[in-house]
Amino acid sequence: MKTSLRTHTCGELNMQHLNEKVTLCGWIQKIRKLGGMTFIDLRDRYGITQLAFDAATQPELCQQIDSFGREWVIQVKGTVKERYSKNKNIPTGDIEIMADEITVLNESLTPPFTIEDESDGGDELRMRYRYLDLRRNPVKNNLLFRHKLSITIRNYMNHIGFVEIETPFLVGSTPEGARDFVVPSRLSHGEFFALPQSPQTFKQLLMVAGFDRYFQIVKCFRDEDLRADRQPEFTQVDCEMSFVTQEDVIQIFEGLLKHIFKEIKGIEVGDIERITWADAMKYYGSDKPDARFGMRFVELNDVLQHKEFKVFNQAELVVGIVAKGCASYTRKQLDGLTEFVKRPQVGASGLVYVQCHEDGTFKSSVDKFYDQADLQAVAKKANAEPGDLILIMAGPRVKTQVQMGALRLEMGDRLGLRKKGEYKLLWVVDFPLLEWDEETQRYYAMHHPFTAPKPEHEAILETKPGEVNANAYDIVINGTEVGGGSIRIHDKNLQKRMFKALGFTEEEAQKQFGFLMNAFQYGAPPHGGLALGFDRLCAILSDADSIRDFIAFPKNNAARDVMLNAPSTISDAQLKELGIKVSEWE
Amino acid sequence: MKTSLRTHTCGELNMQHLNEKVTLCGWIQKIRKLGGMTFIDLRDRYGITQLAFDAATQPELCQQIDSFGREWVIQVKGTVKERYSKNKNIPTGDIEIMADEITVLNESLTPPFTIEDESDGGDELRMRYRYLDLRRNPVKNNLLFRHKLSITIRNYMNHIGFVEIETPFLVGSTPEGARDFVVPSRLSHGEFFALPQSPQTFKQLLMVAGFDRYFQIVKCFRDEDLRADRQPEFTQVDCEMSFVTQEDVIQIFEGLLKHIFKEIKGIEVGDIERITWADAMKYYGSDKPDARFGMRFVELNDVLQHKEFKVFNQAELVVGIVAKGCASYTRKQLDGLTEFVKRPQVGASGLVYVQCHEDGTFKSSVDKFYDQADLQAVAKKANAEPGDLILIMAGPRVKTQVQMGALRLEMGDRLGLRKKGEYKLLWVVDFPLLEWDEETQRYYAMHHPFTAPKPEHEAILETKPGEVNANAYDIVINGTEVGGGSIRIHDKNLQKRMFKALGFTEEEAQKQFGFLMNAFQYGAPPHGGLALGFDRLCAILSDADSIRDFIAFPKNNAARDVMLNAPSTISDAQLKELGIKVSEWE
Repeated sequence: MKTSLRTHTCGELNMQHLNEKVTLCGWIQKIRKLGGMTFIDLRDRYGITQLAFDAATQPELCQQIDSFGREWVIQVKGTVKERYSKNKNIPTGDIEIMADEITVLNESLTPPFTIEDESDGGDELRMRYRYLDLRRNPVKNNLLFRHKLSITIRNYMNHIGFVEIETPFLVGSTPEGARDFVVPSRLSHGEFFALPQSPQTFKQLLMVAGFDRYFQIVKCFRDEDLRADRQPEFTQVDCEMSFVTQEDVIQIFEGLLKHIFKEIKGIEVGDIERITWADAMKYYGSDKPDARFGMRFVELNDVLQHKEFKVFNQAELVVGIVAKGCASYTRKQLDGLTEFVKRPQVGASGLVYVQCHEDGTFKSSVDKFYDQADLQAVAKKANAEPGDLILIMAGPRVKTQVQMGALRLEMGDRLGLRKKGEYKLLWVVDFPLLEWDEETQRYYAMHHPFTAPKPEHEAILETKPGEVNANAYDIVINGTEVGGGSIRIHDKNLQKRMFKALGFTEEEAQKQFGFLMNAFQYGAPPHGGLALGFDRLCAILSDADSIRDFIAFPKNNAARDVMLNAPSTISDAQLKELGIKVSEWE
Repeated sequence: MKTSLRTHTCGELNMQHLNEKVTLCGWIQKIRKLGGMTFIDLRDRYGITQLAFDAATQPELCQQIDSFGREWVIQVKGTVKERYSKNKNIPTGDIEIMADEITVLNESLTPPFTIEDESDGGDELRMRYRYLDLRRNPVKNNLLFRHKLSITIRNYMNHIGFVEIETPFLVGSTPEGARDFVVPSRLSHGEFFALPQSPQTFKQLLMVAGFDRYFQIVKCFRDEDLRADRQPEFTQVDCEMSFVTQEDVIQIFEGLLKHIFKEIKGIEVGDIERITWADAMKYYGSDKPDARFGMRFVELNDVLQHKEFKVFNQAELVVGIVAKGCASYTRKQLDGLTEFVKRPQVGASGLVYVQCHEDGTFKSSVDKFYDQADLQAVAKKANAEPGDLILIMAGPRVKTQVQMGALRLEMGDRLGLRKKGEYKLLWVVDFPLLEWDEETQRYYAMHHPFTAPKPEHEAILETKPGEVNANAYDIVINGTEVGGGSIRIHDKNLQKRMFKALGFTEEEAQKQFGFLMNAFQYGAPPHGGLALGFDRLCAILSDADSIRDFIAFPKNNAARDVMLNAPSTISDAQLKELGIKVSEWE
């Protein structure tokens, strides 16, 4: 890291360099005066080194420093000396530089917030001055981590024969075009490119082209109303393989994930458990279960639908979870849980509890309807022990499962079961191929229209479309879907049947997917793949909540770049060249 | 590369696998019948393996094959056997598979052109069916090469401390906005993002943020009228470093280039020669000289402006080159050269020749004005020997240099001096900082407005702007500019003076570059960088003429993707959501 302006960085000097003449460059983190000494903490990407100046022998230097401020950029020449008072927390803590020359490379205004691990700057302010926020260790380290992860992935994929191929960014608008960002063409007025939501089409074409194993770490774009922690541009690790089954794809990416955990986290991940989508819903009320803790659902219809309690009796599903050791929850705590499930985000109508007291008795919010023997039967079915709390919800099957899933995660949080630093990976498999939409009264592809049905379900695609499972799989870490993929349809007749099941006329299918279907007529191999959300993976592996901290220059929740103030207006001359006008439609 | 569908690829079996039971998958390259045998050449990404079937013992299999066609996708089970007639040209040429089972994985229509190294398909057709064109070895190998180059660069840069950081694609429109692709914002009607022409601003911000060494292999976008071999989206190896001088940047990237040549081509590139921009123009008539051959310009004003030949006497520059051994050029050949320089692309008004005959006499097209002694003086000045041809042009200095530069390259081609497989790297340094534009009567930044002047020229920025040289450098390989960069201005006062020299009012500068100048107020370090054209680098290293062959899915010369048929119209609903209308301006 030696350059014409420095001999070393601020992160590398130690006792081995004693008495060496060195030149350092960096930013002033802090200036301290102690007795007759002036100390500067000099910072660069690599660390912090202490500079020392003696007012007795270097009065002019010390006076010069008095005019300096935080974040000034300086170059310092001096000699490496052992410190009197060592700092064991940093690699350079044993030494300091007795400086004998300072050059100011650039001054700095006082930053609008402190450049410390814990800054005093609010979110908005730090985003506006993102280039200063990036100086803070936590943010800087996130981006260094992201780099390390990307190069680790690239080398692994290269090692096992995957070729990184860049696919285009100026593409055609897709059927799900409503979410496309579009780009007006200057050369063909009235026509638009779209930015790709994913390289899906291209990676399938690359399989038709015979590339066998493709990957790419690539930006994708989706113009949707931003939910928490979504970004209009995001990065995928996108992959596709030929001549494979679902098992092959799962094995390859299980290998990648094991390698990542070992290289990056020093953690040996064993074989990754698999759960069917149906079981994930049944036991966790989620297609992306956080399996760091159990608290699996117990269906209680048979032990709770024999009394006069209508709410249960009329419900499609009565389902409970056991909160270990929570029998002593106070009234207030229990009310809090009821409030939680009644929040619009969860949307349940109520919550029933059964406290399993240490003395063998039970207390329930439905004591009016159920006696001690009934509650004992519930406890037995749920495997609850004295001291546990059983939480029960009832209603339509899927809806209630999802609500109970939310409560389960809440209880996991309250009981500290979702531990940072612990990682539970899970393959969710056997997804339904199609999803029925009540509003539009049609089926939608749960993954996308090229996902292959399980071969054994192909026969019922027309007769029982809702029961067809897909050769599709998601990889879930700690309750977050980190990636997913599928085996694709490579047979054009099956693809036609799929489009029909999705309600496309042959003409529509031809218009929207025609060129891919054409390509498939020229010897498409069996193929499948997977895409990992790279921003998300960075966050998960760092136990962070937000992907934004792993993106150098993210957009805010209104999809704006507040640092650049983008988007912004452009000139009439530009609009004219593009043949468009800014104008609201009637 | 083993998967559930195959035990081996089509590129790996040899004598070591004799008698092994194997399963292969791939495309049918060719079916041949020879006596009682049927042979199939089975192809995948990794190679070709011969399959053999015996009509005598396997009549049904042979009959099945009769229905197959080129590019069908099949799976074959069989045994590895030694061939009778070996093919030494391919790694699998010693063996063949005695097949005993074939499964058709997919049929194929007959491709619209042959999938051979030399295809019968025209350019347009191959672009339309790019996924088939990509099956051809030359195109496939280009993309494999590109992958290898990218991972080689990434690992080298990582190794020397550069961090790859993704910069955003949805950015603000820039001052050179006329070349921006723009993206209308759905959430802020009337406002637009732009796609980045380069990450220039962001990499400078990353230096302000203290990242010290940044790189990125990244797509960039430029909406300009396509000249030959330009693409609206292209890829750069983008880099920036802090606390450096020009020499540091040159050393770092010289190291990268040496590493690339050694790793990828097995060629040891010595230290790279440097030439000033002024000398490049003076001796080669180009700021990107092809230095694989000499043929340097000789200025002949002093030996040719003493007679009655007006064309020379009135010219600012009389300049010649020596074509070794071309004295015997015929009249027709000489006329051809004159025609060449008179083409509009070159634009010269004429060409004078001097033939230096073996017998010591001279023959010239201007014998009327110059006698043998005059021509001998010319030959002496030009270092021409008997048998050589001297070609002379005259006119305004720079214009004539550029025209002579074109002729020099043409002669290099004719004489076979621009050898494939030979690489001559060259740093062009000391570029002028500013370029005067006659049309708009103002200076433009030759690189960009953040390029630093040579420190020793700072003082004359206001008084003699045209004479200021920049700390800027280009790397040229075989006459192609492969990359360039500069030391940036990190001092805000110098930056203000620069904007002034470029004719920006303070208000305009603030409006267009304000936020970068603001960022520079918070401790910007001295920094500089370089960007390599990655597509171009791929082509140069492969001795290829066109970058298009190194892009998986390129646009055509009208900036269209003829495979996708993009750009295309979008729905009114989409336009409405974006608050724009397609409409020509008055």
